Amino acid sequence: MVASELPKIKFLQQPTASAWVEQALANLDTVLLDHSHCERKAAGVALNLMFRYPSNTKMVKALTAIAKEELEHFEQVNQILERRGVPLGPLSAPPYGAGLNQQIRRNEPERLLDFLLVCGLIEARSHERLSLLAAHVPDPELARFYRVLMASEARHYGAYWVLATTYYERSLVEQRLEELATVESQLLAMLHPEPRIHS
Amino acid sequence: MVASELPKIKFLQQPTASAWVEQALANLDTVLLDHSHCERKAAGVALNLMFRYPSNTKMVKALTAIAKEELEHFEQVNQILERRGVPLGPLSAPPYGAGLNQQIRRNEPERLLDFLLVCGLIEARSHERLSLLAAHVPDPELARFYRVLMASEARHYGAYWVLATTYYERSLVEQRLEELATVESQLLAMLHPEPRIHS
Ligand SMILES: [Fe+2]
Ligand SMILES: [Fe+2]
Ligand SMILES: [Fe+2]
Ligand SMILES: [Fe+2]
Repeated sequence: MVASELPKIKFLQQPTASAWVEQALANLDTVLLDHSHCERKAAGVALNLMFRYPSNTKMVKALTAIAKEELEHFEQVNQILERRGVPLGPLSAPPYGAGLNQQIRRNEPERLLDFLLVCGLIEARSHERLSLLAAHVPDPELARFYRVLMASEARHYGAYWVLATTYYERSLVEQRLEELATVESQLLAMLHPEPRIHS
Repeated sequence: MVASELPKIKFLQQPTASAWVEQALANLDTVLLDHSHCERKAAGVALNLMFRYPSNTKMVKALTAIAKEELEHFEQVNQILERRGVPLGPLSAPPYGAGLNQQIRRNEPERLLDFLLVCGLIEARSHERLSLLAAHVPDPELARFYRVLMASEARHYGAYWVLATTYYERSLVEQRLEELATVESQLLAMLHPEPRIHS
């Protein structure tokens, strides 16, 4: 009943089960290493979106701010890994990201809408999971770190929502978000055996 | 004889001809738009390198710092474009980048060495060309902007050099750099008809 302690996050259909929290707390170093990869990937996705849509000035501005923050987070997680003596290195990704990317329709204008909503959902889920880590890790310094980052990820999902409703009708955005949020929760319904931020 | 006013930049075999400066000054808005793309690409290349070599901690640290600075530059160039009323948008790339990427050998350990040296050469050339713009643009505010950025690009080519000599024998690095620098100068020997940072 861990998740029910937290306010429901608007974008997410199902809260994270307590099994994930137990898995994460028992494998904190691996989750921190995966977190490092998530932050670098989040910066990369924001850069890719700018590359694909170079004329959308408002979007380019918002994504530049996001990419900069994700690189800050990446740096901060890597400092924590260094202090804990965890070497940087590759780590297999859970099926979550690929499963969501499969939902992105191939043609415009659907493609950009799906991109923005998938990014928003990932940020919303990251926010929720970092909140859970903030509430449950015993180390107060690490808990403080998670609190700072969860606030930032909440702003990011807000930014992706604002962009979606800038370029698309609100009713269309809400309808597609509901579809994607259903998939997003299904992808996490069964705990992935390897401990990850999105296992 | 514009280029001879500046100290020779270690990495570069041939200085930029004055024809480029004339082309750039006559097409400053286009060069600024291309510059915006260059900064975003420079951030993207640094992220890609981290993605390919996730275990090289020293490199990941240096590249994170570079990517953050390139995003700052990207933001600053975009602000200048906005003040000048130049809309963001796509722009065809000159043959320079693709020509250099063709030189990157496909197998390790050669591949990483070539990646680092190509990045270093691009930074060195950017530094040289921003120096020329700083020395020749009539607008003092724009000149000041170019001076700040040229100092940063000089640090970047230094960082790529340090990484290359961290992971490879110095004599090997120097020999390969000479080969690549020859290609780099050849790629710019004929002025590309479209005004770009690397035309
Ligand atoms: Fe983040
Ligand atoms: Fe984020
Ligand atoms: Fe730059
Ligand atoms: Fe640079």
